[in-house]
Amino acid sequence: MTPYSPRLTRLIEALRRLPGVGPKSAQRMAFHLLERERDGARALGAALVDALDNIGRCEQCRMFCEDQACRYCSAQRAETGQLCIVEGPADLVAIEQNTPYRGRYFVLMGRLSPIDGVGPEELGLPRLGAMLDAGWVRELILATNPTVEGEATAYYLAEMGRARDIRVTRIAHGVPMGGELEYVDAGTLAHALSGRRSL
Amino acid sequence: MTPYSPRLTRLIEALRRLPGVGPKSAQRMAFHLLERERDGARALGAALVDALDNIGRCEQCRMFCEDQACRYCSAQRAETGQLCIVEGPADLVAIEQNTPYRGRYFVLMGRLSPIDGVGPEELGLPRLGAMLDAGWVRELILATNPTVEGEATAYYLAEMGRARDIRVTRIAHGVPMGGELEYVDAGTLAHALSGRRSL
Repeated sequence: MTPYSPRLTRLIEALRRLPGVGPKSAQRMAFHLLERERDGARALGAALVDALDNIGRCEQCRMFCEDQACRYCSAQRAETGQLCIVEGPADLVAIEQNTPYRGRYFVLMGRLSPIDGVGPEELGLPRLGAMLDAGWVRELILATNPTVEGEATAYYLAEMGRARDIRVTRIAHGVPMGGELEYVDAGTLAHALSGRRSL
Repeated sequence: MTPYSPRLTRLIEALRRLPGVGPKSAQRMAFHLLERERDGARALGAALVDALDNIGRCEQCRMFCEDQACRYCSAQRAETGQLCIVEGPADLVAIEQNTPYRGRYFVLMGRLSPIDGVGPEELGLPRLGAMLDAGWVRELILATNPTVEGEATAYYLAEMGRARDIRVTRIAHGVPMGGELEYVDAGTLAHALSGRRSL
């Protein structure tokens, strides 16, 4: 017999659907909300419903967007002539928060993975093709992850850019800042050496 | 400028009120819910509202309770003559899940802590006194945590039991099962030695 009442069970089960939350954390969250954060729980419930009802995807860049005009698809950003392609919304946020880049984005919401049935259609690449055909893109920056699938996706995207005579760049991969050569994995070190630049 | 739209900001802020969730986790949760778990998000929103509206405290034991009759305050449990006192709901669940104990409970929802303004009133001790006066309690089991405040609380509760000629017991503290003496802290080891039992 579960030691929880039905509604408590339901709340704990619902909390477990959050990423990284197991049974113990879910119980702790439920008890915390009921004991000390009833206002917070109500705010969370309202914010969830509100977000689901009002946050959609931008028609252009596929980033989460709640208004008609996506903040990342402004004419001002298009003027830079730069289009950065990332795998997910978190990647966009990371670039936006930590770099001075202020060009436009295209969020794939995934990566090419034929084994999972994710092809160019699922990533919205026809729409990306139309965007590239529009003529304002002068540099296509590929910021997919340096994984096997991310690299394959980057290769495919590079072909799309080259076919339209657009300059294609890939973000640099190598030894992370503050990292120590001694502890860097073999693949990264090999990549860093072969990708060396003249100073 | 925050890289999130207003509703997304609100959702992330609300998720941060969950215990153990910082800005990065909250962002990850929000994106995960919006990208892949919209059903889960809706279920969570509904479960939160439902729980807040319908889960209250039991009049008797102070545990979370959603029905008129608290499952932990049954006549059957009272027949054992045992009353176990714990600091919080999670402690009750831990005992219920991991031990054969099936007596009644009293949940303090805290511990005596004069410095934080938590006295006998806040812990519902007058109600506990009335419960002890009712006459069915033959053993008062003190399962507060072995911290300074938990010990002080246990001491106070023991006095309440003794004043009514009720047998008072304290759960055992010592070397945890599977633990190694070499690595056990000094206080626990001293406690284990002074609390040795004849075999």
